[in-house]
Amino acid sequence: MLKLPKGFSVYTTSASIKKPGRKDIGFILSTTPATYAGVFTKNRIKAAPVKLCMEYLEKKRSIRLVMVNSGNANACTGEDGINDAKYLIDKISARFGLSPKETIALSTGVIGVRLPVEKMEESFSRIVSDEPQEFARAIMTTDTFPKYCYKEVKIDGKIVTITGFAKGSGMIHPNMGTMLGFILTDAIINRKDAQVILKQITENSFNKISVDGDVSTNDSLIFLANGEAKVKIKRKNKDFFNALLDLTKELSYMVVKDGEGATKVIKIIVKNAYSFSDADTIARSIANSLLVKTAFFGNDPNWGRIIAAVGYSNAKKIDENRIDIYFNETKVFENGRPLPFDKTSLSESMKSKENSISVDMKIGKFNTEFFTCDISYDYVKINAEYTT
Amino acid sequence: MLKLPKGFSVYTTSASIKKPGRKDIGFILSTTPATYAGVFTKNRIKAAPVKLCMEYLEKKRSIRLVMVNSGNANACTGEDGINDAKYLIDKISARFGLSPKETIALSTGVIGVRLPVEKMEESFSRIVSDEPQEFARAIMTTDTFPKYCYKEVKIDGKIVTITGFAKGSGMIHPNMGTMLGFILTDAIINRKDAQVILKQITENSFNKISVDGDVSTNDSLIFLANGEAKVKIKRKNKDFFNALLDLTKELSYMVVKDGEGATKVIKIIVKNAYSFSDADTIARSIANSLLVKTAFFGNDPNWGRIIAAVGYSNAKKIDENRIDIYFNETKVFENGRPLPFDKTSLSESMKSKENSISVDMKIGKFNTEFFTCDISYDYVKINAEYTT
Repeated sequence: MLKLPKGFSVYTTSASIKKPGRKDIGFILSTTPATYAGVFTKNRIKAAPVKLCMEYLEKKRSIRLVMVNSGNANACTGEDGINDAKYLIDKISARFGLSPKETIALSTGVIGVRLPVEKMEESFSRIVSDEPQEFARAIMTTDTFPKYCYKEVKIDGKIVTITGFAKGSGMIHPNMGTMLGFILTDAIINRKDAQVILKQITENSFNKISVDGDVSTNDSLIFLANGEAKVKIKRKNKDFFNALLDLTKELSYMVVKDGEGATKVIKIIVKNAYSFSDADTIARSIANSLLVKTAFFGNDPNWGRIIAAVGYSNAKKIDENRIDIYFNETKVFENGRPLPFDKTSLSESMKSKENSISVDMKIGKFNTEFFTCDISYDYVKINAEYTT
Repeated sequence: MLKLPKGFSVYTTSASIKKPGRKDIGFILSTTPATYAGVFTKNRIKAAPVKLCMEYLEKKRSIRLVMVNSGNANACTGEDGINDAKYLIDKISARFGLSPKETIALSTGVIGVRLPVEKMEESFSRIVSDEPQEFARAIMTTDTFPKYCYKEVKIDGKIVTITGFAKGSGMIHPNMGTMLGFILTDAIINRKDAQVILKQITENSFNKISVDGDVSTNDSLIFLANGEAKVKIKRKNKDFFNALLDLTKELSYMVVKDGEGATKVIKIIVKNAYSFSDADTIARSIANSLLVKTAFFGNDPNWGRIIAAVGYSNAKKIDENRIDIYFNETKVFENGRPLPFDKTSLSESMKSKENSISVDMKIGKFNTEFFTCDISYDYVKINAEYTT
C-alpha cells in the first residue's frame, strides 16, 4: 500500500473534463505550510499553470494545496489561461479555507483549449478524501498505470517518509523532467537546499529518460516538505539524498516503461567517454534514434544503427577503432569492427521487457546511464488518434 | 524518358548482394574525365567508400567511372572495408580500361557486413549497358520508386543537360544530404566553382528534408561535369544554378515523398523569424517532431504539437504572443491564441498527399521552407524488420 508522509492527504473529484465520470482532478493537502521547490519545462512556450508555479517559486511562497487536472493542459491559452487558473485557485483555496497564495495548480492534457472552468468549479462540491494512489490515477492521461512509490529513511533515529507521484507518457524528452511529478516529504528542509537537491536528482533521474524526444509545455516536478516528521535535513545528508534519488529513478523508470505504445525498456550505458558531456550526448543520441527504437521493437540486434547514432551525436572525441558495443551483455562490436554472434539467440533475448545497450568508448573515464523505450505500432496509433 | 548529358552512359549488373537476380550494382561512365565535386555525411563514423571518395576529392582527381552497389553499406568494416572497396575499384577500372584513380565507388545498405567481394567481382562479367533510369533502380534499398530527373538549360546559345539520381529512404536527416545522390552535367565547370555551387544547392535542397532524424554513415552527393556540351559555366551563372537547384529540389522532394512508410509530404514554412538560423532551427524542430508527424498520419490538425516544437527549438527569439499558425492555409492560431476552425473539413484536407504547415513568427524577416513526411505504422514495420 502507498503511504503518505505525515501531514499530507489526498483528495479527488471528477469534472468530466475529457471523459464523463472519470476522476480527473487530484489534490494534495498539507496540514501545515510546506517548503516548495520545483523544476519546470525548458520549452519556451510554457503553459499558464507553469508560469504561475514559477511565479510562486520566485516569490518563495510556502504551499499547502496542490490541484492537478488531467485532460486539458491550459497551454497556449494566453491571458485567459492565466485568469482561468487564478480563478480556480481562488475558488479551491476558499473551499479548503486557505489563502490563494498557498495553492498551486497544474494541468496536463490537450494544448490550446480553455479549461472548462464552470465544470471544474462545479466539481469542487463533490471533492472526496481519497486513497493516496488515487491521486496518481486522477492525473493520468495516456498513462496505462498510475505511477507512485514511497521510501522511509531513518534519520537521527526518526523515520522520514518520501512519497512520489508521476505521470507520463508522451512528450517525454531528456532535456526536461517528466510531464508531471510530485515529491512529498515530512522532513524539515530549507527552501534553498530543497531546490539544489531537486535539481541534482532531476539531472540523474527524470533528465535521463526519453520516450519520443518531444518537450512538453507543461513539464513540472514539484517538491513539498512540510516538516511534520520533525527531522531537519542538511543538504549533504546522504541517506535522504539517496532515498530521494532512488525514488525519482523508480518514478522515471515507470514513465519510460509506460511510454506511449512501448513494449520494452532499454537501458543505455555509455562507458569511458571522453567527458561527461560526451557520455551524455552519445546516450541521448542513441536513446532518441527512431531506427534504434524500432530495431528493439523488432528484436533486431542491429548495432549498425547504434554506431551511426554514436557517430552523429555531438560528442567531441570519438575514435571509431576503439568502440565496443554490447546488446544485453553480448559483445557484437569490438574496436570498431563487427564480431560474429548468434543472431537468433540474441534476438530471442531482446524479447525481454528489460534490455540494455552498452557502448564502451575507451577514450576517457566518464560513464552514464539513460533509459528509453521502443517505438511500436501503438505509439503511432495513440498519437495519430489523440485529439480529433 | 530520362536523358543523360552528352558523354555519359549507364551500366548495371546483378551480384545478388541481398536478393538473387536483382540489379544491385549501377555504373555511370563518362567518355572523358569529369570534374568531380562532392558533399558527404557529417556523421563521424564514415563508411569505407565515403572515406575513399573524400580522399579522391582532396587529391583533386577527375573521374570517369562511378560504381554504386545497394544492399551493403560497407560501413564499420574497418581496414578490410577500405581494402575491399580498393580491390573492386581496381578490378572494375581494369575492365573499363581506366585507371583506378578515375573510379569512385559508393555503397548503400546494411551497416557492418563485409562486401561480398567475390560475388561482386564475378558479376562484372555480366555488366550490360542499360537505360539511364535503370541506374536509379539498381541503387534502391527500401525505396519504392527510382528517383531521377533532368533539366536542359540554354546557355550561350547551346544546350546544357543536367541529370540527377537519388536514393532514400531511411536515415534521412536534415543535417546531411540524402543517402546517395548523383548529378551529371555536360557543362564545363572548374572544380572550385563546382564544389561551391554544390554546397550552396545542397543547403537549399537535400539539407531541407527530413524523414526520421537519423544520419547515415554513407550520405554522399556526387557531382560530375565532363564538359562535352562545350559550354563554360561561371560560378555566378544564374540559369545553370537555378536549373541545378530545381533539379536537386525535385530529387530531395522525391526522397521525402518516398520516406519509409510515408503516406504524405508536409511542407513546413517558417516566416518572419528573427534570424536565418532561427527560421531553420524552428523548421527542423517541427519537421523532426514525432508527435507532429503522427498527427499528420492521423489527419489531426493538432497545432498544439507545432507550438510545442517551436517552443523547444533552439531559436534565439520567440514571442509567443505574436505567433500565427496555418494548416493547409487555414489559420488555426493567431497572436499566440487558438482560433476557432472547422476541424472536420481541415482534417479532411489533411488526407491530401501534399500538406503544409506555416508558422509566422512576426519577429523578424527571415523565411525558410523545409520538407518532411508523416510517420505511419509502415515506418515502424519497415524498420523493425530490416535486418533479421
